[in-house]
Amino acid sequence: MVEKNEQATVENEEVTVEENEEAAEAVQEEVEVSPEQQKIEMLEAKLEESENRYLRLQADFDNFRRRTRLDQEAAQKYRAQNLVTDILPALDNFERALKVEAEDEKTKTFLQGMEMVHRQLMEALKNEGLEAIDSVGQEFDPHLHQAVMQVEEGEGDSNTVLEEFQKGYKLKDRIIRPSMVKVKQ
Amino acid sequence: MVEKNEQATVENEEVTVEENEEAAEAVQEEVEVSPEQQKIEMLEAKLEESENRYLRLQADFDNFRRRTRLDQEAAQKYRAQNLVTDILPALDNFERALKVEAEDEKTKTFLQGMEMVHRQLMEALKNEGLEAIDSVGQEFDPHLHQAVMQVEEGEGDSNTVLEEFQKGYKLKDRIIRPSMVKVKQ
Repeated sequence: MVEKNEQATVENEEVTVEENEEAAEAVQEEVEVSPEQQKIEMLEAKLEESENRYLRLQADFDNFRRRTRLDQEAAQKYRAQNLVTDILPALDNFERALKVEAEDEKTKTFLQGMEMVHRQLMEALKNEGLEAIDSVGQEFDPHLHQAVMQVEEGEGDSNTVLEEFQKGYKLKDRIIRPSMVKVKQ
Repeated sequence: MVEKNEQATVENEEVTVEENEEAAEAVQEEVEVSPEQQKIEMLEAKLEESENRYLRLQADFDNFRRRTRLDQEAAQKYRAQNLVTDILPALDNFERALKVEAEDEKTKTFLQGMEMVHRQLMEALKNEGLEAIDSVGQEFDPHLHQAVMQVEEGEGDSNTVLEEFQKGYKLKDRIIRPSMVKVKQ
């Protein structure tokens, strides 16, 4: 009898262990996902990442296109700047030379020819956007004028440009060389 | 006996129908997939499409970048073409005017001044890539020379340029104006 009881007890204990294992499995099933579900989650994450990568690239592309367009517009607008800047010293000398006084007929004809060449050259430069900066009689503007001399005497109000030593030029809205001027203090 | 046989036959037939249905269900199970599997396939297809879309956009971007670079290089290379082309008529007149013969000292000084201006101007144009086209004594080249006159007499071989009426110019490797020439037939 004693042995049989012990046997029953052992059997009871075994049942209890089995019940515990089943409960543990049930809990495990609640937190664990199936391989299919795992794969779905992995694919959803990858898809989202891929879509985001696409959107980032598209934004980069748009930015690049916009920047390129602005660069090209600026390059086009000021395309002649190098050549124009290089030509300015020749232009200074040209204008200085034209101030000669023609006495005889031959020199007069020569001078007239050169004046025409100068006009043609200026016309071509103007077509690209070159413009001389107004200075004498204007109010001194440090963006347009470079004061190489300041005097107290002279016509006009204080801060007026009295004399121009070297002509300044703009290429469209860009100052490529300020005028060198004398200013009234 | 006959009836029982018939009954047996009917039962046999019924069994056969049931077997067919089971077989059909088995086939259906093979082609039918679980909702999870369907979702996996849908996600895999979407992911592939998204990756392909990314690759196509990347290829477009690369092409755009390459084309832009080439456009910018060309625009940069020939940036001075408009202004240079506009200046050529002034240059023609300049060179014609410089052929004057200076008799007195004053005209000589004036001429020297103008020659210097011309050199400065040519230097600036050369720095941007302007180059005069060789013609007199060269073999006639329809890419470089425009024959406005053909004669039978003259020095040199047939097809040689004998005289230049108007100077031609190249901007880097681009002919912006061919020379106008007289050619020996």
